[in-house]
Amino acid sequence: MTEETWSQPIAKVEPNKVAVRGYRIDELMGRVPFAHVVHLVLRGDLPTEAQGRVMDAILVSSVDHGATPPSALAARTVASGGAPLTTGIAAGIMTINEHHGGAIEGCMRVLLHAVARKREKGQDALSAARELMAEYRAQKKRVPGYGHRVHSDDPRTNKLFAICEEEGVAGEYIEMGQALREAMKETLGRDLPMNVDGAIAAVLCELDFPPDMGNGLFAISRAVGLTAHVFDEITAQRPMRRISPTAQEYSGPAERSLEAGG
Amino acid sequence: MTEETWSQPIAKVEPNKVAVRGYRIDELMGRVPFAHVVHLVLRGDLPTEAQGRVMDAILVSSVDHGATPPSALAARTVASGGAPLTTGIAAGIMTINEHHGGAIEGCMRVLLHAVARKREKGQDALSAARELMAEYRAQKKRVPGYGHRVHSDDPRTNKLFAICEEEGVAGEYIEMGQALREAMKETLGRDLPMNVDGAIAAVLCELDFPPDMGNGLFAISRAVGLTAHVFDEITAQRPMRRISPTAQEYSGPAERSLEAGG
Amino acid sequence: MTEETWSQPIAKVEPNKVAVRGYRIDELMGRVPFAHVVHLVLRGDLPTEAQGRVMDAILVSSVDHGATPPSALAARTVASGGAPLTTGIAAGIMTINEHHGGAIEGCMRVLLHAVARKREKGQDALSAARELMAEYRAQKKRVPGYGHRVHSDDPRTNKLFAICEEEGVAGEYIEMGQALREAMKETLGRDLPMNVDGAIAAVLCELDFPPDMGNGLFAISRAVGLTAHVFDEITAQRPMRRISPTAQEYSGPAERSLEAGG
Amino acid sequence: MTEETWSQPIAKVEPNKVAVRGYRIDELMGRVPFAHVVHLVLRGDLPTEAQGRVMDAILVSSVDHGATPPSALAARTVASGGAPLTTGIAAGIMTINEHHGGAIEGCMRVLLHAVARKREKGQDALSAARELMAEYRAQKKRVPGYGHRVHSDDPRTNKLFAICEEEGVAGEYIEMGQALREAMKETLGRDLPMNVDGAIAAVLCELDFPPDMGNGLFAISRAVGLTAHVFDEITAQRPMRRISPTAQEYSGPAERSLEAGG
Repeated sequence: MTEETWSQPIAKVEPNKVAVRGYRIDELMGRVPFAHVVHLVLRGDLPTEAQGRVMDAILVSSVDHGATPPSALAARTVASGGAPLTTGIAAGIMTINEHHGGAIEGCMRVLLHAVARKREKGQDALSAARELMAEYRAQKKRVPGYGHRVHSDDPRTNKLFAICEEEGVAGEYIEMGQALREAMKETLGRDLPMNVDGAIAAVLCELDFPPDMGNGLFAISRAVGLTAHVFDEITAQRPMRRISPTAQEYSGPAERSLEAGG
Repeated sequence: MTEETWSQPIAKVEPNKVAVRGYRIDELMGRVPFAHVVHLVLRGDLPTEAQGRVMDAILVSSVDHGATPPSALAARTVASGGAPLTTGIAAGIMTINEHHGGAIEGCMRVLLHAVARKREKGQDALSAARELMAEYRAQKKRVPGYGHRVHSDDPRTNKLFAICEEEGVAGEYIEMGQALREAMKETLGRDLPMNVDGAIAAVLCELDFPPDMGNGLFAISRAVGLTAHVFDEITAQRPMRRISPTAQEYSGPAERSLEAGG
Repeated sequence: MTEETWSQPIAKVEPNKVAVRGYRIDELMGRVPFAHVVHLVLRGDLPTEAQGRVMDAILVSSVDHGATPPSALAARTVASGGAPLTTGIAAGIMTINEHHGGAIEGCMRVLLHAVARKREKGQDALSAARELMAEYRAQKKRVPGYGHRVHSDDPRTNKLFAICEEEGVAGEYIEMGQALREAMKETLGRDLPMNVDGAIAAVLCELDFPPDMGNGLFAISRAVGLTAHVFDEITAQRPMRRISPTAQEYSGPAERSLEAGG
Repeated sequence: MTEETWSQPIAKVEPNKVAVRGYRIDELMGRVPFAHVVHLVLRGDLPTEAQGRVMDAILVSSVDHGATPPSALAARTVASGGAPLTTGIAAGIMTINEHHGGAIEGCMRVLLHAVARKREKGQDALSAARELMAEYRAQKKRVPGYGHRVHSDDPRTNKLFAICEEEGVAGEYIEMGQALREAMKETLGRDLPMNVDGAIAAVLCELDFPPDMGNGLFAISRAVGLTAHVFDEITAQRPMRRISPTAQEYSGPAERSLEAGG
């Protein structure tokens, strides 16, 4: 049977040369920060300085959230059976889906839809948001990316939006994210601020990322925390232990600040 | 049954506050580059500027290697059955093991052992390397991290070592890496340069990372390329296609340079 | 934080006693065949003898399909990187989804819908099938479970339906499966027999399985073949080899028959 | 690049014909029980009736163990994030490793080693077991497959050995398993009966299975329970809930017996 030749636009490998999206990796190393290379590999082009700083903040924002998220628990549980480091990390990553981190993709779809409608109808953001909320309510659907089981006002959301403002990256999608919060408050009588997934969703829309890729950003960022959790499970915990999702506490360094001399 | 309370030193989560290794994430965002935060989360402390630049280069070095590595093929194959993005990425990550990327962990163990012996016996690097190679030869064991199925002289290795020299991070482990290459040449009659896994291994030893964590760095970096591959498979390829590991070609932008105006 | 007590109806474990769905496992062992126990665990009750024989045939039907299905290729590829046996098997299982094996779930939904409509409208099977095909055509949707990339007339389908006839298990769903084939032939001008996924779908509907569980049956059955493939990859193949999905051949025993003396 | 043709001995697929290890699947369906087909696919040949009954009992023995094993918890946790059924099952399967189920492989290696030594030295089983225990004690190693965190006398072990006696399958490996228990009692002053993993290990040695395949049998059997757990998680539990490994209870049917009229 003859094989069909297929193609991919990501990397070209020749003897002694590896290039991603056209740039030699050894030229990128030491000159272009990792967060900018993430943008290059995923979007096909290097970001502007402003976009690169926003990408960096997105990647830092989701790096870890302690031992309670299902991804950390799944990764630790798999490792506790004796699996190698990378199998444990993988178990954590496959946990990131619609209900966990995956709000990014869902929220991006809502924001893209809402902004497209706003443009089409020549509405302002709040009017479009109100219409959309009314429809969601009628269909008993929730808008993903709002509210959090721990945080009433997510500090990562506020910081991410502040950086976007500073860098001139904030636009219609972040505006629509806020408009939806307003419309939701009117409709539901509850103020649910955007959580970090919602905030990342809005910013990825500003950066023109496709929604199908949204959960990937979260996965890349959280792979860091998952590596630390699986390493801790393998090296510092008892195999086959019962891993409680609630009876656990933090044992790392006390709160410290970058100001303090770091 | 009462539950045992357990502890982890990675992140502390309180309402409206998330801190990793003691630093609030919203303080890190926009100020500390992602590669430095990777060092913080994995090692427990922020890197120096020199260490941070080296970490960044490590993460860039392994970001992708086209469609032939088993991790990219596994990720694409799982996605072609219909799995969601994160399940595909996870399949790629669990492929990173002893024979793929996993040379990092194995090579770190050899380098740590060789340098410990050198110190203990008061030898120079080349003498220690020769002794170790003689033992490996007698036991018919290979030293992981040398040679590559595509590259005879890996450009990523050379660049990584150059950055370590510039930043004053190069020390006994990189020296030992080179000494082992010399000793291998004498013993085997073949010159096998360090591949990028071996180079990362040597540099992670310089940064005092534990070997059990070695493959994690590769997994974090490669998660980026895997995300791009799975996205491409889901959005641009036919479901259930036969994915040839050889009959494939690059279809992205032609080679370009940072100098050219990027 | 107090923990919510949750419950599951599958197995009860007490010191020196393990019972599934109420039956002690040591009472089942040696008396109730594994295929019947699969029915017990998944559906909550032991099957009749007729249902049990059908369950057994379903499990045998999908046990393996050589080295070309994506699940076998993903499992082998993950193993070739150095992962342990169970990680390789897992990679194969997560490949079973909408486009591979997963037709079972999709086809079950179509059959349940078509039979419900037939009953509601008091139609015969072929009329209901024609209406449904017209709708699918208008929406450019395919009915899953028909046609196969290798088999024009799947011998496993024919045998499964024959066993259902013998055992008196064949009913409205198998009838509707055939009616849809007829309607498809009229609409598309092509005769696409049910593939084994479609056949299993129809039979699982007869056995009153919920569609959400459909792919699970395939996963349980195929776990057997995947174990053999991963074992072969680990023990008989070269690590990190390029695993062609086409340039491969069968090297096992020549065709033999149960009649010949088994 | 030309592709190397590779071969596998498991299944041959031709248009309208699928054969495993030489037997057409449609000939096996309805005539050869699934447990016998498992033996065929994994070992290359159909079992005798006696071996087939033992295989069936092994597969039934490990079908589920409630919600506390790490495999069930990992599978449920991954599913609670929103992953599809098969991704959840896969997460459970990759949890089966050295410390969970994986005692099978480790215990098989010990038994094979002990029986080989017994034969070589012309010893009786207890003498060989005592020597081996003395060595393990000196090296501070544990023999896997003895003792259980819940059961002091595992009913599945007793039943499996009873069936092997009935079927004439019990031989040197089961004898050695018991001798090791005796030797352990003398050395440690504690009586640790074989757990179900140890029992399966001894029986798989009697059936001439290679140890590298041991965990695969457990994975195939437990895939059934995992499917039921993931289905329950997806259809009956709240997404992103905290899944306690201890605050859980059984909600299925009360204990019932095959005698009662099943």
